[in-house]
Amino acid sequence: LELLMPVVQPAELWMESGRWEQYGPELLRMKDRHGRDFVLQPTSEEVITDIARNEIQSWRQLPVNFYHIQTKFRDERRPRFGVMRGREFTMKDAYSFDRDVASAQKSYQIMFDAYMKIFSRLGLTFRAVSADTGSIGGSQSHEFQVIADIGEDLIVYDPASNYAANIELAPAPCLIAQRQAASTSLTLTPTPGAAKCEAVAELLGVPLAQTVKSIVLATDPEKGPAQVWLLLLRGDHDLNEIKAGKVPGLNKGFRFATEGEIVEHFGCKPGYLGPVKMAKPVKVIADLTVANMHDFICGANQEDFHLTGVNWTRDLPEPDLITDLRNVVEGDQAPDGKGTLAIQRGIEVGHVFYLGTKYSEALKATFLDESGKPALMEMGCYGIGVTRIVGAAIEQNHDAKGIVWPRAIAPFEVAICAVGWGKSQAVRDAAEALYAELKAKGVDVILDDRDLRPGIMFAEWELIGPPVRITIGERGLNDGVIELLGRKQTEAARIPLSDSCAQTLALLETY
Amino acid sequence: LELLMPVVQPAELWMESGRWEQYGPELLRMKDRHGRDFVLQPTSEEVITDIARNEIQSWRQLPVNFYHIQTKFRDERRPRFGVMRGREFTMKDAYSFDRDVASAQKSYQIMFDAYMKIFSRLGLTFRAVSADTGSIGGSQSHEFQVIADIGEDLIVYDPASNYAANIELAPAPCLIAQRQAASTSLTLTPTPGAAKCEAVAELLGVPLAQTVKSIVLATDPEKGPAQVWLLLLRGDHDLNEIKAGKVPGLNKGFRFATEGEIVEHFGCKPGYLGPVKMAKPVKVIADLTVANMHDFICGANQEDFHLTGVNWTRDLPEPDLITDLRNVVEGDQAPDGKGTLAIQRGIEVGHVFYLGTKYSEALKATFLDESGKPALMEMGCYGIGVTRIVGAAIEQNHDAKGIVWPRAIAPFEVAICAVGWGKSQAVRDAAEALYAELKAKGVDVILDDRDLRPGIMFAEWELIGPPVRITIGERGLNDGVIELLGRKQTEAARIPLSDSCAQTLALLETY
Repeated sequence: LELLMPVVQPAELWMESGRWEQYGPELLRMKDRHGRDFVLQPTSEEVITDIARNEIQSWRQLPVNFYHIQTKFRDERRPRFGVMRGREFTMKDAYSFDRDVASAQKSYQIMFDAYMKIFSRLGLTFRAVSADTGSIGGSQSHEFQVIADIGEDLIVYDPASNYAANIELAPAPCLIAQRQAASTSLTLTPTPGAAKCEAVAELLGVPLAQTVKSIVLATDPEKGPAQVWLLLLRGDHDLNEIKAGKVPGLNKGFRFATEGEIVEHFGCKPGYLGPVKMAKPVKVIADLTVANMHDFICGANQEDFHLTGVNWTRDLPEPDLITDLRNVVEGDQAPDGKGTLAIQRGIEVGHVFYLGTKYSEALKATFLDESGKPALMEMGCYGIGVTRIVGAAIEQNHDAKGIVWPRAIAPFEVAICAVGWGKSQAVRDAAEALYAELKAKGVDVILDDRDLRPGIMFAEWELIGPPVRITIGERGLNDGVIELLGRKQTEAARIPLSDSCAQTLALLETY
Repeated sequence: LELLMPVVQPAELWMESGRWEQYGPELLRMKDRHGRDFVLQPTSEEVITDIARNEIQSWRQLPVNFYHIQTKFRDERRPRFGVMRGREFTMKDAYSFDRDVASAQKSYQIMFDAYMKIFSRLGLTFRAVSADTGSIGGSQSHEFQVIADIGEDLIVYDPASNYAANIELAPAPCLIAQRQAASTSLTLTPTPGAAKCEAVAELLGVPLAQTVKSIVLATDPEKGPAQVWLLLLRGDHDLNEIKAGKVPGLNKGFRFATEGEIVEHFGCKPGYLGPVKMAKPVKVIADLTVANMHDFICGANQEDFHLTGVNWTRDLPEPDLITDLRNVVEGDQAPDGKGTLAIQRGIEVGHVFYLGTKYSEALKATFLDESGKPALMEMGCYGIGVTRIVGAAIEQNHDAKGIVWPRAIAPFEVAICAVGWGKSQAVRDAAEALYAELKAKGVDVILDDRDLRPGIMFAEWELIGPPVRITIGERGLNDGVIELLGRKQTEAARIPLSDSCAQTLALLETY
């Protein structure tokens, strides 16, 4: 059911859900003339849940799915790439309400399938991937990622299976089956100026995979001083902040430690840090692979020095926690055990979430079930970044001359270039007749009557990129022909004027 | 040309136009995460002028007309009547750019004509009326007013001619052709408790038209103390604040005087004020009619007393200014001299403005004219209150059972009520076949398969109000008939199932 929710939403609802506090500066807040707090909607879970709790009383009214297409605003720290990541954008967002988990999962699947069809019809090359639920929340989600090198997301997939996930979520395997015994002694090794694992490996002539990277985080408990955490990753691996954010103790928000905190806890400035002999006690969390390394190299907590031949138990205690902390890399084994992982960049154009009762519980959105007892509604939410699709489609469909629009979202399906409009009655008559004929067939056609020189006109239409261009000029008309050109073709076809409508429709079908 | 301008607009542009200062608290302002000022668009003159100055260089690119359909926000002091005056609403706003005045007036007329067609097609009873240009500015404007008793605007028209205007703008004639000589003496008359003209007239047993009403305004110059103004209207007339706002000295903004200012200048509290023997000098502005009155009654600047037999020149100096200050009343002569005026209430659903160079001058939006010299673009702007049309249409088209939608904006053209959906395969088959047949003909049809009792179903569809309701039930199908009912009819017609699509289309044509 289509409806329209407001762009400017009362803060009270966001306080009820808890997102007034949870959402950071991306949530644009303002006061009205009476001094009351409002937000500009980044999404509408709160408002739709408020509508549902007011409008839905009985299980007979469920399942139901509401949607709107409306302006959203997220005060991004770094807006970029035009419509790809603007602060203001248009989103289609839908919200499902169900009586129980089974029904909600059916609603989720229906929308998932619909999204697959939508993005296919839009002519996009994309993948549906498992994803983190982020600030929306809930227990399950899939992103729809358009494959493009400029994409800001890394998506991980197994070419040998159906497995695909956002790198945020893809579990990384332990690369060392079993920890081996120490074979070298612990040695304080000078590494002047080598503050990165890559530099240390090069300086010492060892593989990068023998080094361990130290990342220092801090958390700010409600009471008491900040707590400092040391995360250890193999030198060739990168931290996955989403995974770190799921570690108990870090799951209420963390930040990178300040230089002051680092010096206080390690007795050394960043670049030469490590888990051996720290100045103050620090919680140590090791990635699965790091925990099984032996004879490894890490910072010595002393400027311009590293330790080589480091071994767990002998040189330092076992880590406080061993868990998956890293991004997967190409070649990692897929979680489904079938093949090895590949990585692509993607542009997120859609996202579906199974929310469960997160919002219905916070806003007390209940209905009377078949036995007459109040029960919480099971919810899902489903978004399509309408504006971003424009950018993603252009990214996937262009050539040196300009855009090659997928037909479903082309601004026009056909452009008629009337050459010599001002001079020739025959051109005007033929162009207007064909325009009317195509319109009558339901074709989205534009007639270019600007009387520009043909070269300029053609270059503009190649830039704008509708699937089909028709050229009508006096010379051709004298021979009873016009020119028909598909945007992906290089040579226009001369076709009889009498057959032009039929052939235009046929060419359009191929786009 | 359709485009989409942002809801959140940078304050810089509003400062360039001067509206950042001019617009009152209706303009919702906010700061982003970097502390920069933004506004929520109430209209988009600034942004479109910025686009035009960047995109238009040559007279060859003119004329051009841009439009968008987008969320607007005006922080109204008193939002009311639901979608009729909400703070957030949807507006279609268009902006024309022309090379000279003649071309701009042509663009204005084209849009005026288009609006006439649009509101006619929407099935609304409306008037186009001359109107004040308000906070948008410019030199000419017309409002499109849907006639309705709950309307907030008063519209004035001459049934004998084409004359129609918002009461804000309708010139009021002087009702007394020539001032007559004094015939009674000036008398201080006790009028205890009679602080209003109506009470004074009743108490003294004279016509209300013999009394004069005193309205005290104040202006706040940039330097020096506030200035006080006395406006005089006949007792049966009302002040027109738009007209007062055009008086030299009041045209930069005025307010009603405070009680302190009144006591200071008149030596008396409100209710007994008048232009004779004021405590301090005050600018006196008389309405055209008041200036020709004789032997009139006004406050004596003494509590519980009025003066009777007041005459200009003899008892007080001529007013400083004589001008039209009042609202017209029913029966006033029309400004075109053809008939007498009638008044209706209206809901403003559209407004067209000829802006001239107000915004192009402020934002320096120039183009190169045919002689290669820079010239300011001539602008117009054109708005339709999309959301408000819904309210206005319902106001004009309803009965005791619910809404009677004009076909063009009905949420559905046809509702098919399938009675006994759950029980009868024949009903399901017939309903789905007719639904598909109507869909194929381009009809906007909904199939009600909720399996409700017929009485409840019918009442809901009468409330919702699509033009045509079709009822399909097993009993009728046994006789090969269905029921067809227009929303304005009281008796459904039994028609053969085989003819149902054709007869539905025919009935729709009458809506």
